[in-house]
Amino acid sequence: MAKALPRSPLAPAAFPKMPRIDGVAFSAVASGVKYEGRFDLMLAKCVPGTAVAGVFTRSATRSAPVLDCQTKLGRQSHDGAAILVNAGNSNAFTGNKGVAAVKAIVHATAHATGIPDNRVFTASTGVIGEPLPYDRITAKLSELVVGLSADAINDAAAAILTTDTYPKGAAAHCNIGGRSIKIAGVAKGSGMIAPDMATMLVYIFTDAKVDQDVLQAMTARLCDETFNCITVDSDTSTSDSLMVAATGASGVDASADPNFEAALHSVMLDLAHQVVRDGEGATKFVEIKVKGATDKAAAKTHAMSIANSPLVKTAIAGQDPNWGRVVMAIGKSGAPADRDALSIWFGDVLVAENGWVSPSYLEEEAAEHMKGEHIRITTEIGMGTASTTVWTCDLTHGYIEINADYRS
Amino acid sequence: MAKALPRSPLAPAAFPKMPRIDGVAFSAVASGVKYEGRFDLMLAKCVPGTAVAGVFTRSATRSAPVLDCQTKLGRQSHDGAAILVNAGNSNAFTGNKGVAAVKAIVHATAHATGIPDNRVFTASTGVIGEPLPYDRITAKLSELVVGLSADAINDAAAAILTTDTYPKGAAAHCNIGGRSIKIAGVAKGSGMIAPDMATMLVYIFTDAKVDQDVLQAMTARLCDETFNCITVDSDTSTSDSLMVAATGASGVDASADPNFEAALHSVMLDLAHQVVRDGEGATKFVEIKVKGATDKAAAKTHAMSIANSPLVKTAIAGQDPNWGRVVMAIGKSGAPADRDALSIWFGDVLVAENGWVSPSYLEEEAAEHMKGEHIRITTEIGMGTASTTVWTCDLTHGYIEINADYRS
Repeated sequence: MAKALPRSPLAPAAFPKMPRIDGVAFSAVASGVKYEGRFDLMLAKCVPGTAVAGVFTRSATRSAPVLDCQTKLGRQSHDGAAILVNAGNSNAFTGNKGVAAVKAIVHATAHATGIPDNRVFTASTGVIGEPLPYDRITAKLSELVVGLSADAINDAAAAILTTDTYPKGAAAHCNIGGRSIKIAGVAKGSGMIAPDMATMLVYIFTDAKVDQDVLQAMTARLCDETFNCITVDSDTSTSDSLMVAATGASGVDASADPNFEAALHSVMLDLAHQVVRDGEGATKFVEIKVKGATDKAAAKTHAMSIANSPLVKTAIAGQDPNWGRVVMAIGKSGAPADRDALSIWFGDVLVAENGWVSPSYLEEEAAEHMKGEHIRITTEIGMGTASTTVWTCDLTHGYIEINADYRS
Repeated sequence: MAKALPRSPLAPAAFPKMPRIDGVAFSAVASGVKYEGRFDLMLAKCVPGTAVAGVFTRSATRSAPVLDCQTKLGRQSHDGAAILVNAGNSNAFTGNKGVAAVKAIVHATAHATGIPDNRVFTASTGVIGEPLPYDRITAKLSELVVGLSADAINDAAAAILTTDTYPKGAAAHCNIGGRSIKIAGVAKGSGMIAPDMATMLVYIFTDAKVDQDVLQAMTARLCDETFNCITVDSDTSTSDSLMVAATGASGVDASADPNFEAALHSVMLDLAHQVVRDGEGATKFVEIKVKGATDKAAAKTHAMSIANSPLVKTAIAGQDPNWGRVVMAIGKSGAPADRDALSIWFGDVLVAENGWVSPSYLEEEAAEHMKGEHIRITTEIGMGTASTTVWTCDLTHGYIEINADYRS
C-alpha cells in the first residue's frame, strides 16, 4: 500500500554514532503486523530506579496506548520500565478492542520482562481504525527479550518507522562534576501526522539520575520549545508520544544541572528538526522567527500562523520571496499586530518595514535566499519584547502525491 | 504574470439572468491599473435613501480601503451611496501612500458622482505591497459616470475579478404584501484569499427599503452563516469585503420581513458556494456537516478543523474515503469530543460509530460517493444538540501549481 519513498533531500548525511546508555537495553524484531521483511517492533528495557517522563498528543481522539501511558506516568517507582512500540497499525479509533489489545500487549510484556504492568509503556503507529493483530506482537516477546542488547538502539530507531524516509537518532554528552553523562534518542515522524501511516514518536534515554518530578517538568518544558515548535501540515496525530527515561546508571544526579538540561534540549531539538526534514514532500527546511510580540503566546501564534499557511508554504516551494503572504498570515493569526509596525526579513534581507516595502529592498537578493535549502523568515512585530522560533517545511506536489495519490 | 486559468470544473453552467434593481446603476471600464484589455474598474451608484451595510476582514493587517469603509459605515444618510472597486492592485500594505490613494479616489468619485466623500465606499483587490497608480482610476471617473446603467451589473461582476475563472452572480425575488422585491449580487474570490492576486469581494443590491441598523445586523448574521462558513485554504485576506445596499426604490419596507431575510440569505449562500467552486485547483465541492456538538461554536470549530485539514482535503482529492483523517481533525480541533461517541458518514454511508468502523460499512460504497463532484461528510459528535454546515473544496496539484509555480 505505502509506496517506498525516496530519501528526503533534507536528510542528514548519515545516522549518527550513538553512545551506549548504561541501564537500558534494546531489541527489535519483525512481527509482520503489516510490513514484511523489516523490523517493526521494538523493546527498550530500563533498570530499576529509572525515572520516566512523557508528553503526549492533546488530541481528544487519542489512541488507546496513549491513554494507557498517561494513566501510568508520574509515579515514583523502583521497578524499572519497559517501552514497547509497534509500527504498521496505530490501534487508534479501534473502540473496546483497542483497549483490550493494549491490555494484552502490556501484560505479555510484563510477563516476559519481569517488569510490572504499570511500568510497561506502549505505543502503536500506522494505519488507523483497523484492529491490531496483537497476537503477532505477543508471540514475539520471548524473542525480543532474548535479543536485548545495550548496543541495539539503531535497530530500535529502524523498527518504529512508517512513512519516514530515514531513521532518526541524536545524542549528546555533558559533564557533571567531572563525570560524563550520556543522552541518546530516536524518533519517527514525517507528517506532523498522517493518521493512516504516520505520527510522531520520540524515545530518549540517559544514564543520568534525575528525580521523577524534575524529569517530567523538564521534559514538558523542553517539549514546548522543540517538538511543539515544529509543524509539517498543521495536522495533529492521535498517537504522538515523547518519553524520556533516566536510568540513573551513571550514579550522577543531574536533577539540578543546567548542562544536563541543555544537552537534553539539544537532543530534542535535533530530533525535532529531523522530523521536519522528513516532512512529506519537503524540499526546504524553514526557520520562522518572530520577535517583538506582546507576549510569548502571541509570538507562537504568529509564528505558527506563518508556518501553517498554505500560501506561505507554497510560495517557499516556488522559491518566491512573497512577503505579502507573511503579512497576511500575521494579520489573520488573531494575535496583536500593527501593520505599520511590522518588519520582515527573508534570510538577512530586510524586505518590509514601517508598513511598506523597505527602500533598500532588492527582490533579487531575497530571491537568491529562497533558492537555498534552509530558509529563514524573521518578523519583528514591533509591539513588545517576546520572541520565539518555529520550524516547518514547504508545501509541494510531493505532499499531494503522498497524501492524495497513494491509493493509485 | 498571472497565467490564464481554465474555467473551474465546478463552475455553474452560465452566469444567471440578473434582475434590474431600481435605485442603483452600474458602470465598468478598463483603467489599465494592471490588466490589459479588460474591465478592471466598476462603479455602483445608489439613490438617496439607500441603506448600506458591510462586513469586512478581521485581519490585523487589513488594507487601507477596508479601514476607510469601516469608519464610514453605520450612519443613517439620505445622500445616496457610491461603491468603487478596482482589480489588479489591492492597495494593501502600502503605508501612508495607500491611505493617500484611498483619499484621492474617494474624493474624485465624490466629485464625479455628486455623492459626499463619507458615502463613497471603495475596495481594491490584486497584488499586495505595490503603490496603487490611482491616477489611472481617477482619470476614468467621468467615463464611468457617463456609462452608468441600471442594466450593467454583469459588467460590474466582470470588472472585479482577479484569479477567478468565472464571474459570479446570484439573484432572488421575494413577495412582501403582494409586491415583488428583487435582490442581485456579485462576488469575486477563488482562494479564501491569496494576497497576491485574490481576495473575496461581495456586493449585493436590493430595491427593498430596510432600516440601516436592521440591515447591518441582518448582513452580519447572514454573513456568519454563509461567507464565514466557507474556506478554500484557511488563509484570510487583508481586503475581504461584503456590502449590501438597500435602495428602497420599491417603496416596500422589508425591515421586519422574514421572506426578505430568507431571500438575501439565498443570494449570499449562492455566491459563497460559487467562491468555493472557484477555489484554486478545486475539483470537488465539499459540504461538511457537524451535528451533536456541545454548542454552536464547538460545531463550527470541528467543522472548520475538518474543512481546513490538508490531510482531509488531499484524501478528498484522491477520492479516498479516509475517515481516520476526519477523526484526527475532530480530535485536534480543541472543541469537546469523545472518540467513542463519534459517528461519521460519507454521503449517506455510515462509516464509523461507537468509536470504531460501523459493522455495516463497505468501503466500496463510500468510495463510490468520493468519486462524485459534490462530497458530503457528516459527523455526529454525540455530546449535545448544536449543528453547523461549512463548505470547502479539495487540495490538489492545481493549488500547488497556482500558488507555488506561478512565477515560472
